[in-house]
Amino acid sequence: MTHLRQRLADLEDLRAASVLLGWDQQTMMPPGGAPQRAETLATLQRFRHELFISDETGRLIEQAHASLNGIPDDSDERCLVRFVSRRWRKSRQVPAVLAADLARAASVGQEAWVYARQRGDFTAFAPFLRHNLELAKRYVECFDDFDCAYDALLDDYEPGMKSSEVARLFGQLKGELVPLIAELSRHTVDDSCLRGEFPVAAQRQLIEGVLTRMGFDRHGWRLDDAVHPFATSLGSTDVRITTRWDETYFPGALFGAMHECGHGLYEAGIAPSLQRTPLGHGLSLGVHESQSRLWENMVGRGEAFSQVLAPLVSNAFDTEISADTLFRAVNRSFPSLIRVEADEVTYGLHVIMRFELEQELIEGRLAVEDLPEAWNARMKAYLGVDVPDDASGVLQDVHWSAGLIGYFSTYALGNMIAGQLWRQVHEDVPDIDQQIAAAELGGLRSWLVENVHRHGSKFTTSELLGRVVGREIEVEPFVSYLKAKMATVYGISLPPNLLEKNQ
Amino acid sequence: MTHLRQRLADLEDLRAASVLLGWDQQTMMPPGGAPQRAETLATLQRFRHELFISDETGRLIEQAHASLNGIPDDSDERCLVRFVSRRWRKSRQVPAVLAADLARAASVGQEAWVYARQRGDFTAFAPFLRHNLELAKRYVECFDDFDCAYDALLDDYEPGMKSSEVARLFGQLKGELVPLIAELSRHTVDDSCLRGEFPVAAQRQLIEGVLTRMGFDRHGWRLDDAVHPFATSLGSTDVRITTRWDETYFPGALFGAMHECGHGLYEAGIAPSLQRTPLGHGLSLGVHESQSRLWENMVGRGEAFSQVLAPLVSNAFDTEISADTLFRAVNRSFPSLIRVEADEVTYGLHVIMRFELEQELIEGRLAVEDLPEAWNARMKAYLGVDVPDDASGVLQDVHWSAGLIGYFSTYALGNMIAGQLWRQVHEDVPDIDQQIAAAELGGLRSWLVENVHRHGSKFTTSELLGRVVGREIEVEPFVSYLKAKMATVYGISLPPNLLEKNQ
Repeated sequence: MTHLRQRLADLEDLRAASVLLGWDQQTMMPPGGAPQRAETLATLQRFRHELFISDETGRLIEQAHASLNGIPDDSDERCLVRFVSRRWRKSRQVPAVLAADLARAASVGQEAWVYARQRGDFTAFAPFLRHNLELAKRYVECFDDFDCAYDALLDDYEPGMKSSEVARLFGQLKGELVPLIAELSRHTVDDSCLRGEFPVAAQRQLIEGVLTRMGFDRHGWRLDDAVHPFATSLGSTDVRITTRWDETYFPGALFGAMHECGHGLYEAGIAPSLQRTPLGHGLSLGVHESQSRLWENMVGRGEAFSQVLAPLVSNAFDTEISADTLFRAVNRSFPSLIRVEADEVTYGLHVIMRFELEQELIEGRLAVEDLPEAWNARMKAYLGVDVPDDASGVLQDVHWSAGLIGYFSTYALGNMIAGQLWRQVHEDVPDIDQQIAAAELGGLRSWLVENVHRHGSKFTTSELLGRVVGREIEVEPFVSYLKAKMATVYGISLPPNLLEKNQ
Repeated sequence: MTHLRQRLADLEDLRAASVLLGWDQQTMMPPGGAPQRAETLATLQRFRHELFISDETGRLIEQAHASLNGIPDDSDERCLVRFVSRRWRKSRQVPAVLAADLARAASVGQEAWVYARQRGDFTAFAPFLRHNLELAKRYVECFDDFDCAYDALLDDYEPGMKSSEVARLFGQLKGELVPLIAELSRHTVDDSCLRGEFPVAAQRQLIEGVLTRMGFDRHGWRLDDAVHPFATSLGSTDVRITTRWDETYFPGALFGAMHECGHGLYEAGIAPSLQRTPLGHGLSLGVHESQSRLWENMVGRGEAFSQVLAPLVSNAFDTEISADTLFRAVNRSFPSLIRVEADEVTYGLHVIMRFELEQELIEGRLAVEDLPEAWNARMKAYLGVDVPDDASGVLQDVHWSAGLIGYFSTYALGNMIAGQLWRQVHEDVPDIDQQIAAAELGGLRSWLVENVHRHGSKFTTSELLGRVVGREIEVEPFVSYLKAKMATVYGISLPPNLLEKNQ
């Protein structure tokens, strides 16, 4: 076990270097650094991949496995061996050259995307997307144990999840969201208090106050600017989050930062015993997103925290906004162009649409050159909005440029998981809303650390949910939460769910 | 040759990752990241070292060597094989575990130094320095082909240089500086215009203006803050320089930034054909320092450039300083505590003192616990100043904390080389001073690129100087430059050099 742990620590160090190279590329690197950066990332990925898939690593896994007799199922050791065995078997089917090509193309693609997005020029980006899809197909061809191409990709982000299951859940979600959106479109909420002049310096101060209450700590965290905000970490005491600023609309930066801080809290809460092992990260993107969305929406845009936020916002911008006005304003639901700025109700449709387009692209049913048209048509059909240009359409997200295909669905899965956790924390900590309203976030944070964070990647999503809520991923808790919230925001009553509530 | 180049490119990519990890540690990393950072750097160093010293790399070098028939002596190929052979033979004598230990200790030591320096607490730093010296001694013991311990260390920073030669040059330098300092102490210059209130924002704008004229370009450069300013690069189009700010005294940040920009221009000027090879860096620290000191002092504090600088300074700080006043003020010579803030005349003695202490430490003639006392005694003897505390004494420099022992002497060698290059550029470009006074720095930059920068590490220092000035390193041009400048600054006449001028 000691030898396996040493090998895995080496691999984690190589990973940490790549994480920093990626963080730097998105936050600090001058544009001239891009070509060299792509090579550096490709080389590190190649070394790491070769070292991981080597026969020697296989032997170390086997030896470690043989030493597990009498060690409990949920021990760090047994979870580590199980996790690494699974990943080793999958990774071994991928040639190191392809792993390096994927890393290089991701780095190159992101630079091309930044360029194309600035100019709203999809044709400048198309060759890079085509290349990324080509590589993704070659990657998929490495495996013969998945039901379909998309499953092989999805498995990297949400291990064990099937696209058929995602489709089933998304079907339920869509069935609930479409009538809800239709109903809400007949009502209105005043959100004029969110627009005006909000200098970056004042926003920054507001956000630092909020993040500090959440658990952001200068000793082990950084907050920077990025075109497409993200969170990452080089260990639980070097967490890096980012946001972007809009001086005419403050919720973007504020809730974006709370979202990324939610991701960061997950990484910061992982048990020290798992550091420098592959279990020392969030277990899947779905669970990761459950943390960010929970903090962003259920806390940040929640009725309880609005009582904390309203005086902070009023003070930062020298104005007077009541908790109720703020709560209703930040939850106004309306179809819009940009996923990361979408309200909680329409958000799911942004994701479902991407999930569908990704499947069509990867299965060759949709050609890259037809993507903008397909995008715009789907936006019209699902959300009723006209896309004025590709920058606010198909070019809005960084993911495909970075080769992250099969990733989007985890955002909606994250909302569902967040709904399940949110219901559970209310059962386990009955006065949680009162705590939050009093700016005491320690109770929620402790519950999350105890039930989710500290385990890192020890369990699968199913196992973790089984331990915490006793269920598989399901749609109903999220939809129930959403309807109850919207009923309050709009002061209306909404029909019950189509879905049954679990007992 | 292709296979060797591929292997070297991989090694350069690993190096680039380490460079970024180091840059980040000094500019961006939250303190909590330190323990993980040290491990990451150690692991990368171990991989890189193992890969480089492998038999396979040796075979690739041999194969490449065999393919050099008919290829000219000063070709990239031949210089590359020669450079790599030499380094391979030296590195092979160092175990990978020791290489990793050195990298880890350097990272850990820097954090300990930042902590100790803030508190002026040498005892908090002593164990780390002791450990670094221990590792340096183990490193030295790997070799049996150096005349003395110090030579093995010095060779890493100034390849081929001997400490006996450094001692000879430093003897000459000291012989010139001591009477010059005594003479200048009888005169005075008014530098009151340098002290006052200089907001960082105004300083930043001034510096950006100056650096842009020098060749700093946002496309391929960054300027950040650091406790101990430095320059580094991840390739010629990703150059990173740093400075620090003092709101009561602007020359520190300004000339510090020009100094680091001088380093950066060297890296940025290296031929594209040498990128991603070990020749794609400055050839030695001495030559590197010649570039930084040339831009900082011979340009930045020169009479010609003062005509450019005076209006920029006046404008930035809303004041009125004449070129002559500024020129004289920034060249005021007086014994002081801090090396990086020392004037050009006294600077050499700061370096000579460190060179002596380093030798005594590495040879065991001076114990770490006695170092502060020895430091303070030497400062009194050489410069006549009393050291009030260790923060402005023995703890002022980052180098020893980062395991950089044998490094300091290259600073004074850099001044000597700068003196030789400065004389030569005046011969080759007779109107260079007029160009500089007119803010046209392109002529100087081109001369440096043509004669120094583009060659990267193709030649040794001796070879490069032979090509450019037809001489070995010597003291006289620097001393002559310095005396002529000081005579103008103080409006006095000074006795001729003890050293003969070359014809």
